[in-house]
Amino acid sequence: MKKTYIHGYDHRENMRLQDQASTLVELLHFDTSYPAGSRVLEAGCGVGAQTITLARNSPNALITSVDISEVSLSEARRKAAAAGLTNVQFEQADIFNLPYGPDSFDHIFVCFVLEHLSRPVEALHALKNHLRQGGTITVIEGDHGSAYFHPDSEAARQAIQCQVELQRRAGGNALVGRELYPLLRRAGYRSIRVSPRMVYVDSSRPELVEGFTKKTFTAMIEGVRESAIKAGIIEQDVFEKGIRDLYRTTESDGVFCYTFFKAVGNQSI
Amino acid sequence: MKKTYIHGYDHRENMRLQDQASTLVELLHFDTSYPAGSRVLEAGCGVGAQTITLARNSPNALITSVDISEVSLSEARRKAAAAGLTNVQFEQADIFNLPYGPDSFDHIFVCFVLEHLSRPVEALHALKNHLRQGGTITVIEGDHGSAYFHPDSEAARQAIQCQVELQRRAGGNALVGRELYPLLRRAGYRSIRVSPRMVYVDSSRPELVEGFTKKTFTAMIEGVRESAIKAGIIEQDVFEKGIRDLYRTTESDGVFCYTFFKAVGNQSI
Repeated sequence: MKKTYIHGYDHRENMRLQDQASTLVELLHFDTSYPAGSRVLEAGCGVGAQTITLARNSPNALITSVDISEVSLSEARRKAAAAGLTNVQFEQADIFNLPYGPDSFDHIFVCFVLEHLSRPVEALHALKNHLRQGGTITVIEGDHGSAYFHPDSEAARQAIQCQVELQRRAGGNALVGRELYPLLRRAGYRSIRVSPRMVYVDSSRPELVEGFTKKTFTAMIEGVRESAIKAGIIEQDVFEKGIRDLYRTTESDGVFCYTFFKAVGNQSI
Repeated sequence: MKKTYIHGYDHRENMRLQDQASTLVELLHFDTSYPAGSRVLEAGCGVGAQTITLARNSPNALITSVDISEVSLSEARRKAAAAGLTNVQFEQADIFNLPYGPDSFDHIFVCFVLEHLSRPVEALHALKNHLRQGGTITVIEGDHGSAYFHPDSEAARQAIQCQVELQRRAGGNALVGRELYPLLRRAGYRSIRVSPRMVYVDSSRPELVEGFTKKTFTAMIEGVRESAIKAGIIEQDVFEKGIRDLYRTTESDGVFCYTFFKAVGNQSI
């Protein structure tokens, strides 16, 4: 069950993440840039969907990108090589048990990772142990409960809820975005500042209609069709209507809203 | 039924609108300022909660603020006099049948009005007839479907839904914010730009915890208690739990999110 929709394990999902990163890149990443020489850990890089942007925005930072999956890492390495990146080192590692000492990093970057974890506070706390005093952690997560649209549709909401429920059953939390402040607090970070990044899409923004509503969000929900129906969470006809209704929001009079949350916290004693 | 919760008819509601305007004023109004000498119509000014800000942001514009209710207008006049405003004229008028000719205004401002109307497109269209070629309309509305929070609570969602349902039964639409783009399009406006204004509240922002989550949003939901229970929309104990859960989001680990939508459109042939 879990494997069927952990991001980045199949080609279509991979393409979706690429689409997502390229259309949302400005919104999510424009204000993340690390100084020359700073040691940055990207924890949970997956297939490297965010790594390219991270490395390009901080061309003189020394980036270490880790993931628990060797399969994902090899794709990330391939992608980084193709992009000509020279400031990223990839290593297989478990966030809960990193092979680094204390004070190994000046900054930590975590994007679309907490949503998959059953113990996000423990993960954030474990990361803090490798961060120098005064260093920062940046966390970016979505929140599927932030999705609403016009025309409204009960079936579309039920289809979205399938993804939320499957992620919950796999131990994750698709509504984690709204929780970044309390999670970082409980993990012991200080000076936490949360900045919501709302994606508002109407037909005057065709690049977001295509790049976000269709190819990122609706494609992701479509990706759980088989698992959701098999698990008995939804009837097939309701799911199909939900997907049609999500596409309906991309027509000339449609509107789609979704919010990502970006948080920055500080390490301190 | 309708009168019980149309904004501005009782003192508590009046105070709430004041609280709302003073805490949200920057978020909603900072980018609305009209040139000296321009003729501005505020359509549906109610008790003048927005009028003070509107007039202060455009001290040399000539503002006409209209409302259908003389009761509201007298309160608005009192407030404007107390604030020392000299650039606002108040007049009793019906948006659908204004006593002005074509091209009477350079700009129109409409805030928290469409949510109460059963024919919002017709209202916007009627307003357009009084706007000069090239003039603008600015519309601000909330959207109760944009409210989500941590800890999540089904009871809180049901309590919010009471307000949505009562507003629907009164002919209004508490989810109108997300629809501004299609509504303005259907009314014939051009170059429509919608800008969502998300209110994100966690305990690091105590002025919003008090001013928005408690005194604006939760107070508004509490305001429909009697009507909602009397109408049989919700059981009293569920409603009370919902309210408690909304206050729960104002504790140190709580988070509350709500989005207003601001749209600007142009008059053209």
